[in-house]
Amino acid sequence: MKVGICTGGGDCPGLNSIIRAVVRHAAQFENVELWGIKDSFNGLMSEPYGVRKLDCETVSGILMKGGTILGTTNAGNPFSLKNPGGGDPEDKSQKVIKAYQELNLDGVIVIGGDGTQGIAYELAKLGMNIVGVPKTIDNDLASTDQTVGFDTAVEVAAEAIARLQTTAESHERAMVLEVMGRNAGHIALHSGIASGAHVILLPEIPFSYEAIIQKLDERKQRGKHHSVIVVAEGAYPKGGEESFKVSSGRKNLGGVGHMVAEELFQRTNIETRVTVLGHIQRGGVPSHVDRALGTAYGVKAMDLVMEKKFGTIIALKGGRLTEIDYQDVAGKFRPVPADDLYLQAAKGVGICLGQ
Amino acid sequence: MKVGICTGGGDCPGLNSIIRAVVRHAAQFENVELWGIKDSFNGLMSEPYGVRKLDCETVSGILMKGGTILGTTNAGNPFSLKNPGGGDPEDKSQKVIKAYQELNLDGVIVIGGDGTQGIAYELAKLGMNIVGVPKTIDNDLASTDQTVGFDTAVEVAAEAIARLQTTAESHERAMVLEVMGRNAGHIALHSGIASGAHVILLPEIPFSYEAIIQKLDERKQRGKHHSVIVVAEGAYPKGGEESFKVSSGRKNLGGVGHMVAEELFQRTNIETRVTVLGHIQRGGVPSHVDRALGTAYGVKAMDLVMEKKFGTIIALKGGRLTEIDYQDVAGKFRPVPADDLYLQAAKGVGICLGQ
Amino acid sequence: MKVGICTGGGDCPGLNSIIRAVVRHAAQFENVELWGIKDSFNGLMSEPYGVRKLDCETVSGILMKGGTILGTTNAGNPFSLKNPGGGDPEDKSQKVIKAYQELNLDGVIVIGGDGTQGIAYELAKLGMNIVGVPKTIDNDLASTDQTVGFDTAVEVAAEAIARLQTTAESHERAMVLEVMGRNAGHIALHSGIASGAHVILLPEIPFSYEAIIQKLDERKQRGKHHSVIVVAEGAYPKGGEESFKVSSGRKNLGGVGHMVAEELFQRTNIETRVTVLGHIQRGGVPSHVDRALGTAYGVKAMDLVMEKKFGTIIALKGGRLTEIDYQDVAGKFRPVPADDLYLQAAKGVGICLGQ
Amino acid sequence: MKVGICTGGGDCPGLNSIIRAVVRHAAQFENVELWGIKDSFNGLMSEPYGVRKLDCETVSGILMKGGTILGTTNAGNPFSLKNPGGGDPEDKSQKVIKAYQELNLDGVIVIGGDGTQGIAYELAKLGMNIVGVPKTIDNDLASTDQTVGFDTAVEVAAEAIARLQTTAESHERAMVLEVMGRNAGHIALHSGIASGAHVILLPEIPFSYEAIIQKLDERKQRGKHHSVIVVAEGAYPKGGEESFKVSSGRKNLGGVGHMVAEELFQRTNIETRVTVLGHIQRGGVPSHVDRALGTAYGVKAMDLVMEKKFGTIIALKGGRLTEIDYQDVAGKFRPVPADDLYLQAAKGVGICLGQ
Repeated sequence: MKVGICTGGGDCPGLNSIIRAVVRHAAQFENVELWGIKDSFNGLMSEPYGVRKLDCETVSGILMKGGTILGTTNAGNPFSLKNPGGGDPEDKSQKVIKAYQELNLDGVIVIGGDGTQGIAYELAKLGMNIVGVPKTIDNDLASTDQTVGFDTAVEVAAEAIARLQTTAESHERAMVLEVMGRNAGHIALHSGIASGAHVILLPEIPFSYEAIIQKLDERKQRGKHHSVIVVAEGAYPKGGEESFKVSSGRKNLGGVGHMVAEELFQRTNIETRVTVLGHIQRGGVPSHVDRALGTAYGVKAMDLVMEKKFGTIIALKGGRLTEIDYQDVAGKFRPVPADDLYLQAAKGVGICLGQ
Repeated sequence: MKVGICTGGGDCPGLNSIIRAVVRHAAQFENVELWGIKDSFNGLMSEPYGVRKLDCETVSGILMKGGTILGTTNAGNPFSLKNPGGGDPEDKSQKVIKAYQELNLDGVIVIGGDGTQGIAYELAKLGMNIVGVPKTIDNDLASTDQTVGFDTAVEVAAEAIARLQTTAESHERAMVLEVMGRNAGHIALHSGIASGAHVILLPEIPFSYEAIIQKLDERKQRGKHHSVIVVAEGAYPKGGEESFKVSSGRKNLGGVGHMVAEELFQRTNIETRVTVLGHIQRGGVPSHVDRALGTAYGVKAMDLVMEKKFGTIIALKGGRLTEIDYQDVAGKFRPVPADDLYLQAAKGVGICLGQ
Repeated sequence: MKVGICTGGGDCPGLNSIIRAVVRHAAQFENVELWGIKDSFNGLMSEPYGVRKLDCETVSGILMKGGTILGTTNAGNPFSLKNPGGGDPEDKSQKVIKAYQELNLDGVIVIGGDGTQGIAYELAKLGMNIVGVPKTIDNDLASTDQTVGFDTAVEVAAEAIARLQTTAESHERAMVLEVMGRNAGHIALHSGIASGAHVILLPEIPFSYEAIIQKLDERKQRGKHHSVIVVAEGAYPKGGEESFKVSSGRKNLGGVGHMVAEELFQRTNIETRVTVLGHIQRGGVPSHVDRALGTAYGVKAMDLVMEKKFGTIIALKGGRLTEIDYQDVAGKFRPVPADDLYLQAAKGVGICLGQ
Repeated sequence: MKVGICTGGGDCPGLNSIIRAVVRHAAQFENVELWGIKDSFNGLMSEPYGVRKLDCETVSGILMKGGTILGTTNAGNPFSLKNPGGGDPEDKSQKVIKAYQELNLDGVIVIGGDGTQGIAYELAKLGMNIVGVPKTIDNDLASTDQTVGFDTAVEVAAEAIARLQTTAESHERAMVLEVMGRNAGHIALHSGIASGAHVILLPEIPFSYEAIIQKLDERKQRGKHHSVIVVAEGAYPKGGEESFKVSSGRKNLGGVGHMVAEELFQRTNIETRVTVLGHIQRGGVPSHVDRALGTAYGVKAMDLVMEKKFGTIIALKGGRLTEIDYQDVAGKFRPVPADDLYLQAAKGVGICLGQ
């Protein structure tokens, strides 16, 4: 039996834990070969194929290493591949299918987020045997309670907030931290609660400056002249939703953090400082949670392959690992729900959510 | 309205996060006073009462502090209080009830593990209005999927294992790490998986030295002359269960770790070294998970008090916070179940569980 | 005896360690009172004076806390105080002297960097008894081998670089990290070496893009398609020195990091990403080095006060604490010297310094 | 040119940083080959020789890895090698010299502590060209201001102390932490100061229980019922020096920590708990200081080889790297001197040193 494995989309901590677990679990079965595919699906589109056999020795020592030993890319959609020579993107999906057949793969384990799993679903429709493993630091996949990578991202963000607290207090400033989260505010919410942020702004709740300023005023009245404001990169002000989304195009620009800081300074004359946490959230040694969860995901993925439960994606639901059909999760994502445990917690301790 | 709050049993990271959340959430209601009770229930048995009013200022800055600002003790069972003058223990439960009445408390939030919640249940039967909040680094309470304190303990243990790996490898030794867990092996299991332990011994699975030695032999055949063995303090060898449990009395002595190391050395002549992690697992800055979870627990506890849902203990079940009647969980605890997600993961990547 | 103490300039990790040590050491002498002055020298210019008595209880628990319990400000120069009503800055130095006399202070311990110590020197000339304690995360004070705050800043920067390494590798990108250091590149140099940066750009060495690109090309030839580039905020390209310095005005804007990333992308088409580490470097729990060094500095400062060695600033020189006259260090700072141990180390392992 | 490199004695964090720097620096010279020798000098005594060529690819990714890729042992003294068949140890030094000649080595870089450097000195007398690099977590080598490995050990110990503080406070206990340091108390002293220990016991200062108890009493009078006591494994009570040293033989047994805890409990009835930190101090990811210092040491070692300055050991003196003749440091070690900066600091903040 010959099984492929690839990682797609932005890298995140814990990918190697998954890969290692798949390979080690495969070694417990007879006649199973694992083949790593380079850079998302690119290894199946290149000449020669970018694939290599993986064994226990290959994955030795990678459990605590960030990133992915298989490489990854955000630009590897076979159905719409960027044309290096310019011009329209091309559909290379048949090339992928052909490679899959030529390499005699019996299945492919696809580790990725929303975008990658969407591609995997389309390839599954074309006949590839696929088992998906959810990963994203944003934790916004519909299929699962917790994605691999999320815990580490929160850890990094929470430490950054804690560091900003002391500067905020010593200088009596409002420190703004922009964290990742375009469509969902899980990182901002968890890290903000964990490190005592005073304001948390999420994509799920359009914010008003008045609400923020009221919070700062209340604090001032209690003699607290500093504050820490955590902003998810996808947060936006109430009302200005459409124009903001259209005009910003703020990829990697830390747009909303700087905007909030500037606006608060203009309106209140409070000294503000901005930090955009950026890529630090997605690299480095995975947390113990992501290493253990990644291991569990990897073992389960290999089990699903052995059971030939293809066309499914792994899901952690209520503390159990199960699988869900691709068609049941395709295109769905999981913003912070209105009755979220941590949303209630944030309100309960008086954190301003911009409302 | 006057509400008491206390922490009982061994301290653990995240207690202050709970206390802070309770106090801050209480401040959102009118006419609610929070009173901290010192050292488990001792503050209700002392003369004068060991109680003090808590407000937002009192709990300022404690979110990231380990331990408990209320103090705690393992020796505060009112039904069987150690007699300082020697002699038989005394039943002081009526004194607690009297204090509860004299202080005009409308309810008490009791943060504690198995022992403390058992006492709380008995006091509830005597008429006290109690809401319980589960905590223990061991994560072995029946009521809830995850206790506050567990994540930090795993973090500390996982880092220790990672540090031992490099020494094991450089010196070609078998390094043994004894971690906490008298009745349940959650800490050993999670930390062991997270940091690549080769053997994990749990109280749930009596181990055989033959199985361990076979694992070491297999590794040797693959050119790996080192190993890391994680042992929960409550683990014991197959067959010797009763005599071992009786004879050891190994409270804080790190008995099983040294025993395993010695026995392996005697049988295989492999160089072994033992580390007993001890109290480091239960102190210090709580992890971001315990800070956030503790905050959620604290808010929920205060909500239950406001809703007068007394005689209950908080539970995290399938990602939601709910409450359970004391009678439904009393005396029950939660060892690692046979179908545990992480037990499967450990087996799947070839970790020896002593079988 | 009555001694004042204040912290000036940007906050940094370890200030509280110094304050705590001063207060605790003072408690070992009879009849010594410590008075904390709020927000640099502002507490001596306000009405009423912003001062408070400090004792061992006040400083209990602050050893591991970032920031400064005394508060600080970058805008507290008594010789040129910003006029809140607009208009020219005012000279309030005589007000400070008057306060010093009215409060019957016998001396003031001034903890601060270059700017603050310059002010202290001027106040000393006007008759104040001053002992200076050097601090700055930049480690660029002429008086001392190592300033309090530096080690923590390097720790934070080194961890960020380590995190970026894995993303760089997985995505085959050039990751640019801008760290603090306007006039000296100590942070960039130490953190870059510690975490395996491939290029380090310092204010001391104007860089050429050609040199950087050559380095990236060499790596590519060895099959390494990723790199991590650490840039001190004060670094600038060769030749463009003057215009760059004039035109940038890049206070807190992360100018040079983005500039380098953009230019490299334009010239080589390599995918680049920028992170500006910012204030995270100057807050949070101080490293063990800064806590121990801060303690040693604090004890020495109090000793100098008792010995009436005023008009001096503490210096760590060759592993010993001594003092230096203000006049011998005033206005001098310490860039990375050409024969620096770590500069040699960087060259020795093949790190490109932009030359 | 052919250069050997080996690591001897106990492993410590930063060894790989040194090895990596040596190899990378060697690559900057033409015709230099680096050969790694396995397990101290054992690779020169085995059949066939345990050696392998090292290049930049071999050392890729090891900067942040604890331990040593060359392996090490405490049982590799060629002048007195343990006889595996029993019987008297053998002198295999001529075998080492023969291997050195047969392998055509032009020099060997020996990374090690006191014991290993002593062996190296003897081998140098027999004609081997040796450059020594000092390493030991204990920081007690006479030649240098700071050994590679020390900073990481202090980091681990300081974090452990910080964790114990909160448990001590919550339970009103005296927590005893035994750290490494047989002949010198640098680790205990630095970590104790950094994390606010109340008592620090060093091998350099025989302690009296009366002094410790007096300290605890003073604290009690100020309402502080908890304390943290850091004990170097080589500390011993006043007067009992000889008998204690003879009778203990407490290798890896954590003898003195348990002894102190028991004695304090017997004399004062204060609840005590002991933790023996053990091997955790010597493994795992090296601190940024050890990674940078290790890199500097490695570059310097290779420079000394190129300059043919054999028979020397590297020394960091007053912030500069230099070399010292073996004969000037042989058999000398560096306990904490009476006028040590940090010893003064400890006294200055009121830490009890057992006197």
